[in-house]
Formats: sequence, structure tokens, C-alpha cells
Amino acid sequence: MVGPVQSIERAAAILRLLAAGPRRLALGEVASSLGLAKGTAHGILRTLQHVDFVEQDATTGKYQLGAALLHLGTSYLDVNELRSRSLNWADALAARSGEAVRLGTPLEGKVLIVHHVFRPDDTFQTLDVGALLPLHASSLGKVLLAFGAAPVEPLLTAELEAYTRHTLVLPEDLNRALGEIRELGWGAETQEMSMGDAGIAAPIRAHGGLVVGAIGVSGPMERICDTKGRPQPPLITLLREAARAISRDLGAARW
Amino acid sequence: MVGPVQSIERAAAILRLLAAGPRRLALGEVASSLGLAKGTAHGILRTLQHVDFVEQDATTGKYQLGAALLHLGTSYLDVNELRSRSLNWADALAARSGEAVRLGTPLEGKVLIVHHVFRPDDTFQTLDVGALLPLHASSLGKVLLAFGAAPVEPLLTAELEAYTRHTLVLPEDLNRALGEIRELGWGAETQEMSMGDAGIAAPIRAHGGLVVGAIGVSGPMERICDTKGRPQPPLITLLREAARAISRDLGAARW
Repeated sequence: MVGPVQSIERAAAILRLLAAGPRRLALGEVASSLGLAKGTAHGILRTLQHVDFVEQDATTGKYQLGAALLHLGTSYLDVNELRSRSLNWADALAARSGEAVRLGTPLEGKVLIVHHVFRPDDTFQTLDVGALLPLHASSLGKVLLAFGAAPVEPLLTAELEAYTRHTLVLPEDLNRALGEIRELGWGAETQEMSMGDAGIAAPIRAHGGLVVGAIGVSGPMERICDTKGRPQPPLITLLREAARAISRDLGAARW
Repeated sequence: MVGPVQSIERAAAILRLLAAGPRRLALGEVASSLGLAKGTAHGILRTLQHVDFVEQDATTGKYQLGAALLHLGTSYLDVNELRSRSLNWADALAARSGEAVRLGTPLEGKVLIVHHVFRPDDTFQTLDVGALLPLHASSLGKVLLAFGAAPVEPLLTAELEAYTRHTLVLPEDLNRALGEIRELGWGAETQEMSMGDAGIAAPIRAHGGLVVGAIGVSGPMERICDTKGRPQPPLITLLREAARAISRDLGAARW
């Protein structure tokens, strides 16, 4: 079974590479990025192209992600139980709070956004579904870390990436913040990812109390926080009610 | 290169299988559906699970699509030039027409929806991005067929699937409809996919005049068509203007 495993892992690595960075890559760039011989990389790319997971630009010969992945990706959403159980509660939370609502689940050291309800006004907003947020600089991520849904150890070995001057970059600061989140039962992020923006999030538990995701509201500082820069208590209440309701739907005990 | 090609193709076939049908499958179902030995299927599934392309349900042991595919799928949208060049025109078309707008590109004998602007009212609508529509029963698909963006030959060998009593199921009827679409420069679908619904679509051309996609408006019959069941001329005009504008942005000559 070694052969198949290796080629599939390499194919997955190529797809990840194309999903990051500049997005269109030449054969040589793919091969050298992954330490593969050009012939090996070419064979994998040709196969990925054959199954529509990769497309090759006719003019430049460069490779990019293919259309079949979009259908697979949205099909994943259809079978995601966390998301399907949360749809109505997320809509209700957005309507009641007047803020944007997002649902996150851990994926490979990041938070994957699996649902996003726009703030119910007519402002221009872009859909975050499929986006990956950093664990240590998002309220969804900090909640997933605090309640053990994503491993915190890999983040405690070195200074973390600073997105703003408010990002928690020191492991001891992050650790302290996670302790507070565990005590409060919810977590906030104030201008830690992008200046002027804030978010609060609460854990979603499944059968047995295991935290499987987080739900959060986010938006401009002045909407999410009070004049002292602290999350608005009424928002926290609405958020926690939604998180509890979804958890009960997923089979968690009442708490 | 035969080994890697085969295992990647098999992995892709397993992902497609999980994206279709009941969505959660046992090892035995995967193996027998694809004519693989159980051990072979297990090795591939384990690898796909390792790279987060597949998830295994803890209770039932069944397999379903994994979270990493969502990120890859939405990353594909970021590099799709047809979509990025169309965003503003699609928004404008929805605002001017008051109808839902969708953008389609051919994928494996179907139409893949790569962009969807909701009808600008407050009704409940679900996002179609990532969905696959049949070529012969959607206005987007008929336009792609008529202008050679998707091969028509595979559809001319037998009777086609009937979604309603209006679906064009006979190859000769479809062929005649495609000829009319080529003459008119746009195509309609009236209750051919679902009773009470209709759509019109126009081709999007890239450099050299090649049709690479289609843009369409769709909705309830009484909004898209007049009392005689024919597409409303003002809608057709707005749609064709948008299709021409996107084509020019993509490098097609004016026509």
C-alpha cells in the first residue's frame, strides 16, 4: 500500500500548494516547492488535470486549481452535520443581533469557515465560507483552542504571527487568554486580526460534550464592543443562547 | 508513471462517489461501487482521510467528504477568471433585472455554477454555487451546447432524462432547439427542469471568440416569461448586454 499512499499524498500536497500563494504555478515551481523530480510532478499534475482537479492555462502552461474541486467542496457542506444543524440558529442569531454570524470548525491548525450569514443590512460583504482563519487571532479559533477542539501545543513553542499590534503573539499571553475563555464560556477577539474589527464566539458541543465547532458574531469594533472596548453583554447573551441551542440539536446535554 | 496515475484516478473516483448519492458510504459500498478490492479501497480511503479529503464517522465507520475540499473548492473560485471578470456585471444585471443571476461553465457533461447573485428581494434563496445542472434541461447548459463549449454528441445517442413533461428528451428536439439558440444568440428553458420555473441565458466569449461560459437569469415562470410563456424581451436585452460586456472584458472582439 506504500505506492498509492505516496502518490495520493503528493497529489494532495500539490493541490494545497496551488490553493496557497500566487495560485498559478509552472511545473518547475511545483516540483521544486515539494522536492519532487519534474517528471514525477508532471505525471501527478497530468492525472489531476485528467480528473478536472487541476487546469492548465493554455497560454502560459501554468497550473491552477480545477472546477471539479468546487463541486466536491460544496458537496462537503451538504454532509456537514454541524453546519446543517446550525443553519436556522445562525439565521436567527444574525436577525436578532443585527450582526454577521460565522461558524467555524478546526482544520489543520486553522479555523475553516463552514457557514456565514451576512449582517442583515445592505452593505457590501464577501462570503467567507471556505476561508481559513488563524487559531490564535480569531474569536472562533481561540474558542476552539480553549475547549480542546484544536491542539494548542503547536502554538506554544514560538512567537506567533502578528496581524496587528493587538495580536497575542506570546505563548504565555495566549495561554492566559484561553484560561479566561474556559472560565467565561465564550471568547473575544478585539482588533487582533485586523484593526477596527472584533468578534466574539462560543463553543458548540456534540454528543458527550465534545466541542466540535464554534459560532461567532463579528464586525466593526463600535458595533461589537462598548465604548470601553469590551464586548456588548446583550450580544454575548444572544450568542451563547444560539450556541447552546445548536449543541442541544447535536445531542449535547443541557448545561 | 502508471502506478501514481492509477491510484490518483481511483482516489478521485472515490471522492466523486462520495459527492453523489447518499453521501455517507461504508468501505464495502465504496469498494463494490468502483470494482476495487476492499484492501485497495481501504488504503486509498485511509490516505484521503489522512489529508482531510475524507472524514470517517466515529459511530458508524462510514466515510464522507472532508473539510479540506471546501477550502480547495473556494480557492478555485479565486482563480477562476470567468467568475472574477463577471462579478460586477452579474451584480448590475441582478439589480437592473430584479432577478437572480447565475454563471455557468461546462464540467464533465454538466453545467457547474460558479457564481450566483440572489434575486434582490428578501425572499429565502439557497446558494447554487458548486451545483451541477444538466446540460439539456437548463438555459445555461443549452447555450453551452449550442455554442460548442460542451460536446453535444454524447447527448444525441439516446433519450435524455426527463425532469418534467417539458424537458427536451429526444435528440432531434434538442438539436433543433440548439440551432434556434445559435440563430438567436441566446437560449431559454421554460419549465424543462422544474415546473413553474424558467431561465434565459447568453454565451460568454473569451479571446478568439471561444465560448467559455454562460450567464443567465432565472426564476418563476411569471417573472421570466410573458403571459404567452415567452421570455420577456427587456430581460433578454439586459442579459445580452451583460454577456457582451463580460466577453469584452475577457478579450473577445466586439460583436
